[in-house]
Amino acid sequence: MLEIAVLGAGRIGRIHAGNIAAHPDARLAGIADTVPNAAARLAETLGARALTIDDALSADAVLIASPTPTHADYIERAAARRLPVFCEKPIDLSADRVRACLASVRQAGIKLMVGFNRRFDPHFAALKARLGAGEIGAIEMLTIISRDPSPPPIAYVETSGGLFRDMMIHDLDMARFLLDEEPVEVTAAASCLVDPAIGAAGDVDTAVVTLRTASGRLCQISNSRRASYGYDQRIEAHGAKGLLRAGNVLPTTVELADAAGFRTDPVLPFFLERYAASYRTELGAFIATITGGTSARPDGEDGLRALLLADAALESSRTGRTVRPSEV
Amino acid sequence: MLEIAVLGAGRIGRIHAGNIAAHPDARLAGIADTVPNAAARLAETLGARALTIDDALSADAVLIASPTPTHADYIERAAARRLPVFCEKPIDLSADRVRACLASVRQAGIKLMVGFNRRFDPHFAALKARLGAGEIGAIEMLTIISRDPSPPPIAYVETSGGLFRDMMIHDLDMARFLLDEEPVEVTAAASCLVDPAIGAAGDVDTAVVTLRTASGRLCQISNSRRASYGYDQRIEAHGAKGLLRAGNVLPTTVELADAAGFRTDPVLPFFLERYAASYRTELGAFIATITGGTSARPDGEDGLRALLLADAALESSRTGRTVRPSEV
Amino acid sequence: MLEIAVLGAGRIGRIHAGNIAAHPDARLAGIADTVPNAAARLAETLGARALTIDDALSADAVLIASPTPTHADYIERAAARRLPVFCEKPIDLSADRVRACLASVRQAGIKLMVGFNRRFDPHFAALKARLGAGEIGAIEMLTIISRDPSPPPIAYVETSGGLFRDMMIHDLDMARFLLDEEPVEVTAAASCLVDPAIGAAGDVDTAVVTLRTASGRLCQISNSRRASYGYDQRIEAHGAKGLLRAGNVLPTTVELADAAGFRTDPVLPFFLERYAASYRTELGAFIATITGGTSARPDGEDGLRALLLADAALESSRTGRTVRPSEV
Amino acid sequence: MLEIAVLGAGRIGRIHAGNIAAHPDARLAGIADTVPNAAARLAETLGARALTIDDALSADAVLIASPTPTHADYIERAAARRLPVFCEKPIDLSADRVRACLASVRQAGIKLMVGFNRRFDPHFAALKARLGAGEIGAIEMLTIISRDPSPPPIAYVETSGGLFRDMMIHDLDMARFLLDEEPVEVTAAASCLVDPAIGAAGDVDTAVVTLRTASGRLCQISNSRRASYGYDQRIEAHGAKGLLRAGNVLPTTVELADAAGFRTDPVLPFFLERYAASYRTELGAFIATITGGTSARPDGEDGLRALLLADAALESSRTGRTVRPSEV
Repeated sequence: MLEIAVLGAGRIGRIHAGNIAAHPDARLAGIADTVPNAAARLAETLGARALTIDDALSADAVLIASPTPTHADYIERAAARRLPVFCEKPIDLSADRVRACLASVRQAGIKLMVGFNRRFDPHFAALKARLGAGEIGAIEMLTIISRDPSPPPIAYVETSGGLFRDMMIHDLDMARFLLDEEPVEVTAAASCLVDPAIGAAGDVDTAVVTLRTASGRLCQISNSRRASYGYDQRIEAHGAKGLLRAGNVLPTTVELADAAGFRTDPVLPFFLERYAASYRTELGAFIATITGGTSARPDGEDGLRALLLADAALESSRTGRTVRPSEV
Repeated sequence: MLEIAVLGAGRIGRIHAGNIAAHPDARLAGIADTVPNAAARLAETLGARALTIDDALSADAVLIASPTPTHADYIERAAARRLPVFCEKPIDLSADRVRACLASVRQAGIKLMVGFNRRFDPHFAALKARLGAGEIGAIEMLTIISRDPSPPPIAYVETSGGLFRDMMIHDLDMARFLLDEEPVEVTAAASCLVDPAIGAAGDVDTAVVTLRTASGRLCQISNSRRASYGYDQRIEAHGAKGLLRAGNVLPTTVELADAAGFRTDPVLPFFLERYAASYRTELGAFIATITGGTSARPDGEDGLRALLLADAALESSRTGRTVRPSEV
Repeated sequence: MLEIAVLGAGRIGRIHAGNIAAHPDARLAGIADTVPNAAARLAETLGARALTIDDALSADAVLIASPTPTHADYIERAAARRLPVFCEKPIDLSADRVRACLASVRQAGIKLMVGFNRRFDPHFAALKARLGAGEIGAIEMLTIISRDPSPPPIAYVETSGGLFRDMMIHDLDMARFLLDEEPVEVTAAASCLVDPAIGAAGDVDTAVVTLRTASGRLCQISNSRRASYGYDQRIEAHGAKGLLRAGNVLPTTVELADAAGFRTDPVLPFFLERYAASYRTELGAFIATITGGTSARPDGEDGLRALLLADAALESSRTGRTVRPSEV
Repeated sequence: MLEIAVLGAGRIGRIHAGNIAAHPDARLAGIADTVPNAAARLAETLGARALTIDDALSADAVLIASPTPTHADYIERAAARRLPVFCEKPIDLSADRVRACLASVRQAGIKLMVGFNRRFDPHFAALKARLGAGEIGAIEMLTIISRDPSPPPIAYVETSGGLFRDMMIHDLDMARFLLDEEPVEVTAAASCLVDPAIGAAGDVDTAVVTLRTASGRLCQISNSRRASYGYDQRIEAHGAKGLLRAGNVLPTTVELADAAGFRTDPVLPFFLERYAASYRTELGAFIATITGGTSARPDGEDGLRALLLADAALESSRTGRTVRPSEV
């Protein structure tokens, strides 16, 4: 039984802690949060203990789900104790800080897995497997549409690092995952169309990015902070031999037909519902990494590369030029 | 150029006359109707002449689209002149009258094609071809759903011969066409749920039928005189190796997504739109029968057999017993 | 914490026992089976104990998932101890035996819930709720298509009670559930098309049924023991104001497009996958019935009525007559 | 009866000539081609005459479907005779030549309609109408996917003006049509992935473009010269209140289900099939423009603006910079 402690008792910590508690090969060592009451409340619902950060770092492994600014520090403290770490994305909003943190990770020789959970979504994972099996030959174009149901609170926006680093980073990782080749050119365009307050906070709410790999593969990403019909998450890969796509997931198959036409459900509301399975599978992969001795994927370098793409996208959106992402 | 005269200037006569006028291998010889003004009006819009019935029977071929009670007489008069005939279904509401008429047809040696136009619908024709190609192996079960958008006027109901002979006859022909084996048992259940006036007129508006062939193939038909979402026309064939189905046809592919879900168009409104292509192809088949010397299909026997199945269904719905259709 | 014992360690017992073990408001008291090793093995995987039948009947409630011939006896023994019972369908293959058993249940005043799990399937439950909300007005026609992926072993067929009592009984219950009115006429047709060995065992593998209620609502059911594309489970309700349907569930949304067309996944393979959620929700309903004091639904009378419809269907398929189901 | 002459007896001339011949309000005055035999052959199949260019310019109106380099000259010759003109896109590959031609058109005061036929496709026209009706509120993002089934001959590629001016120009016009606001920024990325011979001819076969309007609306276009599954033509508009999309059109609704899943037809093969209705409706609009006195739309300025966007896209794909399209 692998004892895993969770740092952070917020929305995403709650998901991970629940999954650890339910996993047959793991035990929830406890939950630590800088707000002790939050840790205590969550721990209670799961029959676990609230811990100090220090105590949490005595478990067999640690899962970091605390606010972004704490991630790199916690990773380094875990590295110092030679603990395997799962860290929610992003490691840090500063690429330099991430590089420094990854150096500590390498030096300590610990495993670090980064929370790009969508790689584990059963629909996208099946798409990836079928791409790998050659069903459409070489991939040539990739289309990723990813829209939140509604914008986050402005307080969140202000510390999020902006749409590219906070939201699109998932799609940038997905593009790397599916293109099987690094994007070398990034071009972005962005607007504030949903909520002027987001613009006032210095961010955008509507953005598109084009990626180009060295061999010429092209990827288009479309992001919006609002979609009236639910959490829009779609991927389409176009290749020499055909097209593979993964569509939205609806809560039921029920359809109504009347004079207005045929009507299905709207899309599952948000990531808690849409990606519930991906979080469980992701945790299983983390556990297998530790108990099975395999490499962690996505790892710290994946986290850094996605951040560098997001940084390039942000720069491109501001300069109107195609930008090459920085070196790792 | 084959000269074809049309008998009957009503709704269905208008369709056929227009198709003849537009066909590259045919010429519209003219239109005859017992209401001369109706013939004149339709003829004018098509640049053709209004004819007497007698004159019409001097064309190269005749297409009968007049009221049902006139069909058998007109067929016999055409047979007397050795004219090829296309006749709208049904030949007559009385099986005995149909048998007598078909005897005249056989004696005259003319070609008689009966207007089961749905056999020529591109969707159903493709389904039939793929069944024939063995895509699902031997057919085992057939499901036919056929619902009108709204009930006909009571005056029409009163002379229609009833739902089984007027409406379901198309589905019974389709069942024979697709099952590739004669149904030997017919069981029906029927109700009046849509409009009590239909019941008062001695008819039903909601009916289902089960057919069974000698080898045990089963077919279910579902009819209603009302469907709020349009003219519902669907077929599903289930076989040893899989399922083949042909769905409804929508006017456009446009889809709206919003908080209420995803919404497509309703189904094409009625047979004029849904089966426009089938009438054109059916006419081509009739012309090819004459000019190419092939057998007419569906022919008079097909018309009789569908009527006998409808008669059996009506009897079953009244007696609660499975009925064997009469011999041809 | 409600302690529930499971009788029967077979395929369906395993599902229920696992769900009890995972339920927050219940505890798995243990598992009893006439094959003690089977109970022990299943109990071990769930961290529970193997019990004798007698010990099992000392729990707070009992869930009967043993072979059908034992159901009625176990219900009566539980009734003697005033235990709430959940029993897999059917209570017994003999309607008279069911009637006797239900008399004991009534006399003891215990709650008895019968395992028509499909009522709890999220898709069908949503359909039912939306029917109830009046989205299509009064229901007029119901179409239920239910096909197994492949026929059961002949040994199973021989003791199953036949397709109508074993397989279609689920659809007959669903018809009652959705029609909101008792069927008063049953007409069936059946064949052996899939496997001659099934016919040799006295059963059929392909069957259709028509139900008619007192007010004239019509229901068509289509059953086959084989569907190459997976476990085909569909429902369509046609009403005065429109149509509501619940389609098949696919494992992923992934679609491939190539020269052969657009291809989705086949349907979920069988009931373990398709109805996993329904078993969990069903268990929750049973627990709520006990802890919340609500009536059990579906209850013993529902079980009896579905059996009487199956008996009527069997008789109709043999006599070619429409049959009125026996009185409760 | 409006007499319309057709210049150009190639693939697209054939479509237009056939539609004129079939139109109730027009007569095909004849067909002119620099290859007289081509004109004669096409004219014969339509019961029309082969004409000299000069004779053609004596009709009531002229439809130019000749090779691109002749378009501007013919327009100017027609303008000199005050003839209404329909011209296939593009007017010319040089924006300056187009400007000069449009000056002649303005001076002559003739009507000039340009052949962006997709505006008249029933699916896209319905999408446009519903956008106009406010179904999704203000449009924020537009996604246009447009892929040919297979690359054109290299000889065609060499004189086509390149993918942006030859193929994407349709999508750029569609973007203008649907965005209801001029794009002011164009960013493109392009590759040669389908056929190296296309690259050797100085062109690309795979390209994406991002457009941004003054108010910040974003549009993504995806083009490929190859799609194994047919002629891929899709549009998606995302707005404040929802999403409207128009999907691909399949030849039939037939679907096969077997162990491999559910399979529909591939998409209609190419523009002759996909856009047959749009050419007919487009011709009707041209005729109505002349007979009804309404403005021609899309007109010469629409043709020029789409070309300027294509030029900007080409420049962007070569410089890696966002480009503002030139002034009209």
